[in-house]
Amino acid sequence: MKKFILFLLLFTAGHLFAQSDSAFIRKVYDMALSKGNAYEDLRSLCKDVGARLSGSAQAQMAVEWGEQKMKGYGFDKVYLQEIQVPKWVRGNKEVCWIHVGQKAIPVKILALGGSVGTNGTIKAELVMFNTLDELKKAKRSEVEGKIVFLNQAMNEKDINTFKAYGGCYGIRAHGAAETAKLGGKAVVIRSLAMPVDDHPHTGSLHYEDGIEKIPAAALSTKDCELIASHYAKGKLKLTLDMDCKDLGMVTSYNVIGELTGKEKPEEIITFGGHLDSWDTGEGAHDDGAGIVHSLEAMRILKESGYKPKHTLRVVFFMNEENGNKGGMNYARIAKEKGEKHIAALESDRGGFSPKGFSCDGDLAKFQSMFDFHKLFKAYELSEFERGYGGVDINPLKEHFPGITLFGFVPDSQRYFDFHHAESDVFEAVNKRELELGCAAMASFLYLIDKGL
Amino acid sequence: MKKFILFLLLFTAGHLFAQSDSAFIRKVYDMALSKGNAYEDLRSLCKDVGARLSGSAQAQMAVEWGEQKMKGYGFDKVYLQEIQVPKWVRGNKEVCWIHVGQKAIPVKILALGGSVGTNGTIKAELVMFNTLDELKKAKRSEVEGKIVFLNQAMNEKDINTFKAYGGCYGIRAHGAAETAKLGGKAVVIRSLAMPVDDHPHTGSLHYEDGIEKIPAAALSTKDCELIASHYAKGKLKLTLDMDCKDLGMVTSYNVIGELTGKEKPEEIITFGGHLDSWDTGEGAHDDGAGIVHSLEAMRILKESGYKPKHTLRVVFFMNEENGNKGGMNYARIAKEKGEKHIAALESDRGGFSPKGFSCDGDLAKFQSMFDFHKLFKAYELSEFERGYGGVDINPLKEHFPGITLFGFVPDSQRYFDFHHAESDVFEAVNKRELELGCAAMASFLYLIDKGL
Repeated sequence: MKKFILFLLLFTAGHLFAQSDSAFIRKVYDMALSKGNAYEDLRSLCKDVGARLSGSAQAQMAVEWGEQKMKGYGFDKVYLQEIQVPKWVRGNKEVCWIHVGQKAIPVKILALGGSVGTNGTIKAELVMFNTLDELKKAKRSEVEGKIVFLNQAMNEKDINTFKAYGGCYGIRAHGAAETAKLGGKAVVIRSLAMPVDDHPHTGSLHYEDGIEKIPAAALSTKDCELIASHYAKGKLKLTLDMDCKDLGMVTSYNVIGELTGKEKPEEIITFGGHLDSWDTGEGAHDDGAGIVHSLEAMRILKESGYKPKHTLRVVFFMNEENGNKGGMNYARIAKEKGEKHIAALESDRGGFSPKGFSCDGDLAKFQSMFDFHKLFKAYELSEFERGYGGVDINPLKEHFPGITLFGFVPDSQRYFDFHHAESDVFEAVNKRELELGCAAMASFLYLIDKGL
Repeated sequence: MKKFILFLLLFTAGHLFAQSDSAFIRKVYDMALSKGNAYEDLRSLCKDVGARLSGSAQAQMAVEWGEQKMKGYGFDKVYLQEIQVPKWVRGNKEVCWIHVGQKAIPVKILALGGSVGTNGTIKAELVMFNTLDELKKAKRSEVEGKIVFLNQAMNEKDINTFKAYGGCYGIRAHGAAETAKLGGKAVVIRSLAMPVDDHPHTGSLHYEDGIEKIPAAALSTKDCELIASHYAKGKLKLTLDMDCKDLGMVTSYNVIGELTGKEKPEEIITFGGHLDSWDTGEGAHDDGAGIVHSLEAMRILKESGYKPKHTLRVVFFMNEENGNKGGMNYARIAKEKGEKHIAALESDRGGFSPKGFSCDGDLAKFQSMFDFHKLFKAYELSEFERGYGGVDINPLKEHFPGITLFGFVPDSQRYFDFHHAESDVFEAVNKRELELGCAAMASFLYLIDKGL
């Protein structure tokens, strides 16, 4: 019985601050929902800057935009971290037709990020595979000299759409290399998109060392249905013409702002999203939302008068989409400087209604500090589970083994309607959903800072 | 210790069927997400029928649409339940201007449902109140002969938007009567909408017996901001011209389909949504989604081969929006026929990502039968709490005191962007979100039927 009472006491002590925490979280939500800057900041990033692929003039504008925003909000320190990033450009020409008998039908394509161009026009017979595994098992004679069409659909039965995305990721990442191994001339893939619609969705591919680099492009899911239906009736040819190309490495920047810690300024909590986007749409959900979630969270914490124990460092990472040079260099430089990193949080799953946070690390430790479920119940957050942090913060794990990474988790259902497509524009983001994300981020950062 | 073991046994017995239940729920979700009819059925209701206010030709089309759908899906019984509903028509003219000095600025309005017309043009000085309570406290001299402008905004700090809606509901319901009591000529209200946008949102009003009926209309939130800014600078006049009118009661129908219970056919579980909508937009979220959730849930349960213990009765209620004659008569007739009603479930909160179910009744009883949290965790449902069932099923409580009512709870954040406005169209509903709602409804009905 003594042990039991001791347990109760310890348990209670762990949740001592619940009342003042509740009041602070309420204040954070009020600031985000009634006097928030998030929606206007996202509008500005999407409309004044727009799509901002690493190495582009727009990416440089985004760096300046981010630095000005942080300075405008009066963070204690604001600075740029110089890095080298790949510069790939789509070029001017990007066309595709299917040939059904004597008829040429144009279909929309987007070259996959990093793809080589076609160096003139490629016209060849199409061979379709329903999965990457089917392609891998094919004979060279089935593929050689042809254009491969990978028509693998996201599994709509997966409840969380990121799981369905993971299941299809291989066709985009490895389709080109696997096609080249069998002598194929080019590959076109079904967009990694949940709905059947008109937008091709781009994304990065990975060529393999020693394997020929061949052109790769994404088709809209609707065009894939069209092509598959013609393919079922007889042989098809496809014409592809793209002049995208790689222009080597160029200088760019991570944008960094800090609120200096009051008790342990040398201990750093990093949080952020990625500033770059693909070169289509406006990068609103991916990852304008994450940028604004992080910027607004820092602004709210500062404006609220909160004095963090540790140094809170907001980072707008560059080049998540096609290289992750921002995240990798940030972690490396932090290690080289001898910094002490204790936790990190990333938002890169869109600006939808918040559901909670995933934890790559010792979740139980944090749950013993705060009853997240109880503190966030009124804010309709209920997911606090083990899971991935984020691409940009992930390299911190290698250099700081004890660090805990967190990922912001919003509802996933609509994300792959917009991801890497021309439909990912400001208008696709709902103001309240975005603001609730900012408040969730600010509240969670406050708890991490206070608990550690 | 014996007691403890007994407790464990009882507890376990209460959740005996978890494994087969899990498998059944998985099957239901697979059917909804990969071979579902929900999205196409909603498209048809929104595009082939469209807006369908009680008493209109479109409402009659919707009745026939519903009957044909149910018959097409082969439910055991399909029939119409005749009721009398109010017929109110917007008429052809609906215009409004504000007069700023010599300038007349047109603003968009929607007459509130049930409003009398202006009987020619009304032009009068505007007097603004920020809340209904402010109006109630005003002197007669402040209001007499004027047009009242109720500019009460939904409270954006409320996390759940239905709470914010409840806080403003009074200006729409009682604004006209309170204005008339003080001699005002007409009332214009700020739309009960969360965003600042261009759409007026209509909805029903309640005149009081013995109080003059005066015209009432909703303004878009953006126009309210405009008018308020001019009002702050000096006196304003407003012109209003609307020829809406009440055409008395006409015949309409609830549409009913049944799967006959195998063990207790005389015990009925009712579920549904409302078939009528306002006469603007397409009634997609309100309540096309609820209709399709219910129709698809029944279709899936039938197609899955499930044989319900009790009779499952899907009801497309008529006239929820301006009278609730469907719900009231359904309950009354059920009582008169001596039917036995044990539970009811309604979907009338939009077609957004499901969060769970609210329970107006003995939730603990159902939770002792099934661990909802555990069964639905993989489907991202986490809210199982006490709360409201729905407007249409609520009258069942009066006639069947032991009944338990349930309400389907989706995410609320975007609902009041669309509610009762021209923006509530098919395109505003996401396919996956809708389908997940259907699966949640079918799964929950299965558990209620099995547990009772």
